[in-house]
Amino acid sequence: MTDNDVDSRTSTRRGPERREAICDAVFGLLGEVGYDRMTMDCVAERAHASKATIYRIWPDKPELVVESLMHHLASTPDAPDTGSLRGDLMALMTAGCTAATGVDGDVISGVMTAAARTPALADTLQQCLFEKKKSLHEAVIRQAVDRNEIAANTDPELLHEVMHAMILSRRLWSNTPLDPGYAQHVVDDVLLPILTRRKT
Amino acid sequence: MTDNDVDSRTSTRRGPERREAICDAVFGLLGEVGYDRMTMDCVAERAHASKATIYRIWPDKPELVVESLMHHLASTPDAPDTGSLRGDLMALMTAGCTAATGVDGDVISGVMTAAARTPALADTLQQCLFEKKKSLHEAVIRQAVDRNEIAANTDPELLHEVMHAMILSRRLWSNTPLDPGYAQHVVDDVLLPILTRRKT
Repeated sequence: MTDNDVDSRTSTRRGPERREAICDAVFGLLGEVGYDRMTMDCVAERAHASKATIYRIWPDKPELVVESLMHHLASTPDAPDTGSLRGDLMALMTAGCTAATGVDGDVISGVMTAAARTPALADTLQQCLFEKKKSLHEAVIRQAVDRNEIAANTDPELLHEVMHAMILSRRLWSNTPLDPGYAQHVVDDVLLPILTRRKT
Repeated sequence: MTDNDVDSRTSTRRGPERREAICDAVFGLLGEVGYDRMTMDCVAERAHASKATIYRIWPDKPELVVESLMHHLASTPDAPDTGSLRGDLMALMTAGCTAATGVDGDVISGVMTAAARTPALADTLQQCLFEKKKSLHEAVIRQAVDRNEIAANTDPELLHEVMHAMILSRRLWSNTPLDPGYAQHVVDDVLLPILTRRKT
């Protein structure tokens, strides 16, 4: 099958749609085989697009992967507001564990090795998983300060940093599941002691 | 060059020496290119051994990598005993940050993606980085309990789990260094609040 044949199959798809289909194919493959084993041939086959089309849009593999990651991981969900710090932390942890257990976690682990030597990938992960999620953690801390549960100078970055490390470390390293028991352990044994210790 | 030519170059090396040279070559390559891009041809070339020799000892790539990881990462250093919990934690964190910043950290990040789909690799990392380091954290907690700095029922696993997550997450994700400032931040803002909160 030539590139033209493949393109003719998808010629009814318009630019943005085709772009999205390619990003979806990349995201699926990153989760299944990881960055280093994902070839442009696989992407083309999965997306029913030609390699020529792909290279016309993205000059290299990192740029293609960056767009796919941004497309799938960069959303900012609404912050929880359950009425208590513990409730909000449980909601954040539960959402994080669910994401890490699903395809998002597979993809993150799939790009981990490559990100260490590819600054554009590392920057994108930083952007998707820290910058774009910042407002969630800021809201949870602000609500807890307003409820007088924690000190006014509590740093939302500290919550973000530790929660993130605990979820990812468990996802990447451990054979044990990110289940409700783990969420509760992190909230009660790690996050609450850190966040409440400065309250006088 | 044939396999026989290569083997004749190293024929003066005895079995264990040759095995170690191959494990060293694998370790170096894992840090430089990562598991998925490390071919047996690269290993053979770097170790000045034939592929036939390598396959005679290790039937597949995971087994070869497992032995290399065990050979280089499974040691148990002496536990620090500085006279205070904070001093011991700083010593543990400093050693962990140093290891993560060097070749060991490159190798760990190099096998991360592959470990997620290769249970033998995940088990080996668990063995090298948790099981073999357990006694360090147990000693630090026992010393702090003896000094009456923390509650007698403090769980050494909690220290291990959180310290590990903080070091690895920083190494894998962030563009910022694992410097003394980071060690101090983790000890003062994360580990001490967690470990001392139960003291009454």
